[in-house]
Amino acid sequence: MRVVVPFDARDPKTRLAPVLDPEERRGFALAMCRDVLDALAAAGTSPHLLANAPVDVDVPVTVDDRDLTGAVNGALADAGADEVAVVMADLALVTPGAVERLLQTGSSVATDAEVAIAPGLGGGTNALVVGHPSFRVDYHGASVRDHRRTARTLDAAVREVDSFRLATDIDEPSDLAEVLLHADGRSRDWLRRAGFELAVTDGRVGVARDGAD
Amino acid sequence: MRVVVPFDARDPKTRLAPVLDPEERRGFALAMCRDVLDALAAAGTSPHLLANAPVDVDVPVTVDDRDLTGAVNGALADAGADEVAVVMADLALVTPGAVERLLQTGSSVATDAEVAIAPGLGGGTNALVVGHPSFRVDYHGASVRDHRRTARTLDAAVREVDSFRLATDIDEPSDLAEVLLHADGRSRDWLRRAGFELAVTDGRVGVARDGAD
Repeated sequence: MRVVVPFDARDPKTRLAPVLDPEERRGFALAMCRDVLDALAAAGTSPHLLANAPVDVDVPVTVDDRDLTGAVNGALADAGADEVAVVMADLALVTPGAVERLLQTGSSVATDAEVAIAPGLGGGTNALVVGHPSFRVDYHGASVRDHRRTARTLDAAVREVDSFRLATDIDEPSDLAEVLLHADGRSRDWLRRAGFELAVTDGRVGVARDGAD
Repeated sequence: MRVVVPFDARDPKTRLAPVLDPEERRGFALAMCRDVLDALAAAGTSPHLLANAPVDVDVPVTVDDRDLTGAVNGALADAGADEVAVVMADLALVTPGAVERLLQTGSSVATDAEVAIAPGLGGGTNALVVGHPSFRVDYHGASVRDHRRTARTLDAAVREVDSFRLATDIDEPSDLAEVLLHADGRSRDWLRRAGFELAVTDGRVGVARDGAD
């Protein structure tokens, strides 16, 4: 199975701008991406990166300056009838076990799924396995809803992967708490080195940064 | 296995106050609670409710006016050496399949787990299976971290359940989008009847309400 990880190497994680400057956002995004690539490799896959600029990682990189939707649809078209997994680069909580559940759900050998979807918080699609040659993505808006609809239109069987670790993409400052609570890789280390720690209050836990107000 | 669902029948879901009045919050909380009880029954369990006031549901109700932590620890003490599952009443996305994964992870027959934890967003503990007679809960603060630590102190094996549907408790207005996107029971119907619909913007999807600004 082809495994593709799209990555914004230019101006990633803009919704983290309230807490990280542009250089920090690039550094943290790369740490998360490497965690995702590690988990994919540990699950026995050979991922490649689909980036909008050159990136220094230990896997093959395809540079494609189309937007996320265009670049992923290019990769799906290239794959023809081959199965393709598309896994977002900001899943800092992902583990090899979560990847294995995704691939198992998406494997047309093990199940009847032609499209496997791991929903993300807030209507996103954090990971997909596409086994239908005509399926194309659209990451704008409530993409999980649109992807379900697309699969229905194609009469493609859909299975969903129920995973907190796949659902938790790290987009907003409050998401950083999830990394500190549940991850143990480069992303967690990056945040700790940058001075972030859990801020425990009533309700959901947030983060605070050394030296910040 | 005993299955306990704690429920605030008095003033539930206070963090939804920006979008729901007190009577609505009670109605919506009860809809979610019934969805959870249905999923637990469909998974083959016989749940009972642990509430701080009488509630009209089709399962046995124990009224205990201690706070959440006190009431659950009372139930754990009563259970002695029996296994106890504690499942929050606001998991509107829960399915019988997610419950089965929780119980399977927590079953000391199937695994070596003495405590199984399903983390919630923001450091919560949305579901637990406790098979160690001395384990007690503390739901204040980052409870998932505290429960891991408690288990370690007791030298009890811990397994975590990686489930988006168990992780997504419905506490804040933005969580309502998850119900509209992923649930199909009473909670979803309640929100629709109350005029809520998805509001698709850039980033994570939110909700809007008919007639609201």
